[in-house]
Amino acid sequence: MIIVMKENATVAELGRVLKVLEDRGFKPRPNHGAQRTVIGIMDATGDDLSDVADMPGVDQVAPLSSKFKMVSKDFKPEPTVVQVGDLKIGGSEFVVMAGPCGVESTDQLLSTARQVKASGGRVLRGGAYKPRTSPYSFQGLREEGLKILAMARQETGLPIVTEIISPELVPLVARYADILQIGARNMQNYALLEDVGKERKPVLLKRGLMSTIEEMLLAAEYLMSGGNTQVMLCERGIRTYEPATRNTLDLSAVSVIKRVSHLPVIVDPSHAVGHVDYVADMCRASVAAGADGIIIETHPDPSKALSDGQQSLTLEAFDELMVSLRPIANAMGRTMIEPVGK
Amino acid sequence: MIIVMKENATVAELGRVLKVLEDRGFKPRPNHGAQRTVIGIMDATGDDLSDVADMPGVDQVAPLSSKFKMVSKDFKPEPTVVQVGDLKIGGSEFVVMAGPCGVESTDQLLSTARQVKASGGRVLRGGAYKPRTSPYSFQGLREEGLKILAMARQETGLPIVTEIISPELVPLVARYADILQIGARNMQNYALLEDVGKERKPVLLKRGLMSTIEEMLLAAEYLMSGGNTQVMLCERGIRTYEPATRNTLDLSAVSVIKRVSHLPVIVDPSHAVGHVDYVADMCRASVAAGADGIIIETHPDPSKALSDGQQSLTLEAFDELMVSLRPIANAMGRTMIEPVGK
Amino acid sequence: MIIVMKENATVAELGRVLKVLEDRGFKPRPNHGAQRTVIGIMDATGDDLSDVADMPGVDQVAPLSSKFKMVSKDFKPEPTVVQVGDLKIGGSEFVVMAGPCGVESTDQLLSTARQVKASGGRVLRGGAYKPRTSPYSFQGLREEGLKILAMARQETGLPIVTEIISPELVPLVARYADILQIGARNMQNYALLEDVGKERKPVLLKRGLMSTIEEMLLAAEYLMSGGNTQVMLCERGIRTYEPATRNTLDLSAVSVIKRVSHLPVIVDPSHAVGHVDYVADMCRASVAAGADGIIIETHPDPSKALSDGQQSLTLEAFDELMVSLRPIANAMGRTMIEPVGK
Amino acid sequence: MIIVMKENATVAELGRVLKVLEDRGFKPRPNHGAQRTVIGIMDATGDDLSDVADMPGVDQVAPLSSKFKMVSKDFKPEPTVVQVGDLKIGGSEFVVMAGPCGVESTDQLLSTARQVKASGGRVLRGGAYKPRTSPYSFQGLREEGLKILAMARQETGLPIVTEIISPELVPLVARYADILQIGARNMQNYALLEDVGKERKPVLLKRGLMSTIEEMLLAAEYLMSGGNTQVMLCERGIRTYEPATRNTLDLSAVSVIKRVSHLPVIVDPSHAVGHVDYVADMCRASVAAGADGIIIETHPDPSKALSDGQQSLTLEAFDELMVSLRPIANAMGRTMIEPVGK
Repeated sequence: MIIVMKENATVAELGRVLKVLEDRGFKPRPNHGAQRTVIGIMDATGDDLSDVADMPGVDQVAPLSSKFKMVSKDFKPEPTVVQVGDLKIGGSEFVVMAGPCGVESTDQLLSTARQVKASGGRVLRGGAYKPRTSPYSFQGLREEGLKILAMARQETGLPIVTEIISPELVPLVARYADILQIGARNMQNYALLEDVGKERKPVLLKRGLMSTIEEMLLAAEYLMSGGNTQVMLCERGIRTYEPATRNTLDLSAVSVIKRVSHLPVIVDPSHAVGHVDYVADMCRASVAAGADGIIIETHPDPSKALSDGQQSLTLEAFDELMVSLRPIANAMGRTMIEPVGK
Repeated sequence: MIIVMKENATVAELGRVLKVLEDRGFKPRPNHGAQRTVIGIMDATGDDLSDVADMPGVDQVAPLSSKFKMVSKDFKPEPTVVQVGDLKIGGSEFVVMAGPCGVESTDQLLSTARQVKASGGRVLRGGAYKPRTSPYSFQGLREEGLKILAMARQETGLPIVTEIISPELVPLVARYADILQIGARNMQNYALLEDVGKERKPVLLKRGLMSTIEEMLLAAEYLMSGGNTQVMLCERGIRTYEPATRNTLDLSAVSVIKRVSHLPVIVDPSHAVGHVDYVADMCRASVAAGADGIIIETHPDPSKALSDGQQSLTLEAFDELMVSLRPIANAMGRTMIEPVGK
Repeated sequence: MIIVMKENATVAELGRVLKVLEDRGFKPRPNHGAQRTVIGIMDATGDDLSDVADMPGVDQVAPLSSKFKMVSKDFKPEPTVVQVGDLKIGGSEFVVMAGPCGVESTDQLLSTARQVKASGGRVLRGGAYKPRTSPYSFQGLREEGLKILAMARQETGLPIVTEIISPELVPLVARYADILQIGARNMQNYALLEDVGKERKPVLLKRGLMSTIEEMLLAAEYLMSGGNTQVMLCERGIRTYEPATRNTLDLSAVSVIKRVSHLPVIVDPSHAVGHVDYVADMCRASVAAGADGIIIETHPDPSKALSDGQQSLTLEAFDELMVSLRPIANAMGRTMIEPVGK
Repeated sequence: MIIVMKENATVAELGRVLKVLEDRGFKPRPNHGAQRTVIGIMDATGDDLSDVADMPGVDQVAPLSSKFKMVSKDFKPEPTVVQVGDLKIGGSEFVVMAGPCGVESTDQLLSTARQVKASGGRVLRGGAYKPRTSPYSFQGLREEGLKILAMARQETGLPIVTEIISPELVPLVARYADILQIGARNMQNYALLEDVGKERKPVLLKRGLMSTIEEMLLAAEYLMSGGNTQVMLCERGIRTYEPATRNTLDLSAVSVIKRVSHLPVIVDPSHAVGHVDYVADMCRASVAAGADGIIIETHPDPSKALSDGQQSLTLEAFDELMVSLRPIANAMGRTMIEPVGK
């Protein structure tokens, strides 16, 4: 259930409502919007709260939408803006996250990070722990990779996003990363969701490659019901019968999520299409679809990348892409920072 | 095989090559580009043409890409621009086609057509023959519908696109329509493709909702090998496991097709997403993905539409959409005509 | 609506009910079951027939299930048995149809037909008109192929099933074939369904490779509402993301259809799995899933087949398969004829 | 690489080969088949082993198939038989595992276990830890559920299979269970695969509902490369566009796996079809498809089940199903034990 307070409700009225709810054993979660405060209650029914509806300052008591609770716009009508240092994701700025699939060496990462920064990228991506389909593939540099990421952050000032592949790694990765990424294969790894939900770091939750939008929202519900409200959703392509692209980028997911949820939406065209030829087109389409940002793969020498080289942009191609994104972002009423390097 | 002529080859040299090929029983198809002429030969092998490579004016003899021939950029490197009266599709203008799913009455179509025109739409769509999953559903006004479409063209000057559902209807529909539409269910109806291939009217070929991009290109090959080169390809969503949208709009198909084919690409977001809430977002994304145009459903009163009401924009929403498309088209380096009605 | 007559209703009572219905402009379609007669009325509502419920001999008047009418068990509770000469399909016998993908020559077809007959096959399959994805592929021997099929029938006594790919071919193919096949690509070719619906020959309707079970039943509804009640449904695999098989055989479709429809169900494992290694396993599974028969590809020399060689059984492998099917059919309470050639 | 020993190689020759390999730093893994021994070496190349090919007793040195190593028939040509107490899975007996989706109470589980035993079931299934799409759904009785399972085993003698949802639970669940189940959502949870791979208990690895057969085999490779060779693969339906069933049961996966791998294959029709009406048909089809066993849901009162009630057989329906399976198993040359309770 949700309790919607009146626009002119006083803080004292809110306090009394919260007190009554706590006294009955509920854990009320207030969301303070610009115009009103909405209080969410997870396990209550209408019967439990019939008298609360008559309390001063209360506008109405209403059920939450059946499936989604904390991720829903019913619960929090205003868009969530995730704060990463000075950077705001989900606000008016269109945010580009970029970097290599995997951290391979200090040189590789630093040269990438400098170009990402110079071209106007805002977050540096790079995998230190790689979930691989085969046990015999390159699994990442692990903690060594995290250290290289931290070094690149120190030099460029770019916050870093990197993947967590196991609950036991949460404390370690959280010590280094600014944004914790949950990968597509782990979208329904509930033990991991619960542990990341207890952190207070921003999370980038990737859609499973054959998960429905509803399942992604329910996975976000795991994170939020654990207490972590800094959640970003990431569309990264779904598995279909079409072989021309690695997966099929489902840009309509951006539109669907924006209508039911307040969470920011990021698009990952690199993993979706799987081939560098189609990445730039899909980045531009993501802006116009209404996404809050993109996350893309770029590498100083894609032909030598240890993973996903065929879908990585060169640093030059990345810079060209950034130039082409700005006018579209502006046409959509969004800002992008000017390139630093020019 | 293709024979690529030198840039400075003379008309006489070209004529001699064509003569030699015809004498051997081939049907050479020259494509005159701005810089060079390329001659396509369907059934030849490299052995057949080894001496032709040495003829004056010939640059090289090369195999066509294995699967695609006439639809391929190897065969015709320059983009095809389809001409419909004064309108050019596939050139610098981003073209909007709009109208109701089915023609229902003179009033319904005329009021729609006037708004399409006023808002800057360039082609009027409307179904007279409707392929329906159930034999008990509304099947369209048939020839009466074609007459109403012709009336709307006369008043507004908008060319009309309408679907052909059966080979026997080709002569009748071709008499009324400016663009012949082959629907998704009929993309592999080869009898229909062959008959439409003999016409010289522009064709809008929709991707089957179960078809790969390669299969769509091969269906276009049926049309082109029949002699009709005025072919446009239409992405309209594919069937996936995701239930939030009617189908999944595969915008990466625009990018894929543009790399292998010279044919214009049109996107139909209305049928893809199946719900009016997501149509405008996907129209904007289509522009930025690099499509040459869109085809969308609009209706004076969607709640009363006999088919597809839930995915039809009101005329007001259509006008608002058009306003939002122009800056994105401009950001992509494309033009759109100014609204007539303002 | 359906009108269910009482078990002891007389012919005269039935006649009076039919007369009343016809007088009101309906086209009543009586189905005479072993125990009762059920009359179907396509366009009526409960209001139209409220007085009919009180007529002598009438048990009840009830709505048809919303989507399916003539294909539904509500309309005809007893299984349809399709009669092809002496052969009954949909009764207690498990029926095997076999032959090459395409008719290539008299020798190829006759040697196949003899082995099909000798091993206990009941129907000879073979394509004379081939719908091909590329216009440059082998399109079949056309009428010459039909003549060879007829010759094989004359020698072996096996009835023949062959595909119709276009409405204009219906009269010609119907003159030669015992069972008219509608292929997967044409399952929603409504012009073709309507023309075949007017024939009185048995039809084998193949599921579109990305069609739902409901859409297949509605396509059968087109055939039956046209007057052709001799319809068999064929599961032939659906398009999924799994690349190990050509398509994914959906054997649960057999189970689903058997619960809603009275029509016989045939399974085509050859096209579903696309590789000879998996065909025999899926034939055996089809028997145990409750199918009424299978249709499979066999060829004297698969390595030389002009189409689908990789999924065709050799004649020896076909014979071995037949031996393995009989005990499973018996375990399912079904019969198979003994091999003629042993 | 693999080293294939000659049929008449002596133990001493084998010992010398193993010694040479270990001296070079490899970890050779010998597989002793009925006719020959094959030694697997994970990281070697042909160059490393060129001299080994000439050693006495060695027949040949060959590369492993590129993607699969320990799961492959190249590595171990003979079928793996998993031993659970006296029960052999993957041999001549067709094995039925049955029980409720979730353990709900002692009464519920014991009454189910007795019927499973009485009807000829061989393994008791029941979930104590339930991975649920929504954080607000029933998550299982946890350790209390494991204790109830152990109690049911003690009374009936049936070994138990239950799911592990997190690496940290491996020691606890392994203390109670006879077979460790890895669920569909966790098929690519590599941290979990690694920990279970270190156990020496039999594992039932379920196919992810979005996974290819190849990915399932590679997940099994994780388990086996960790040292656990007692792996069973479970087909449980894949996600497709078809809405009539919960997922689409891919029985051809049984056939595909049997051709590339030596591991036993179990089918789970309950989760695949998701509706009780279709379960029995698909169980029978699984036998005929060549599976080594099935795992199905049964409940004393499905209408009151806390999860998956709509797909659970009543105990009576389960008993009837078992009666119908035996003749099909026999027709396939397999045994099933007689019902105990009759």
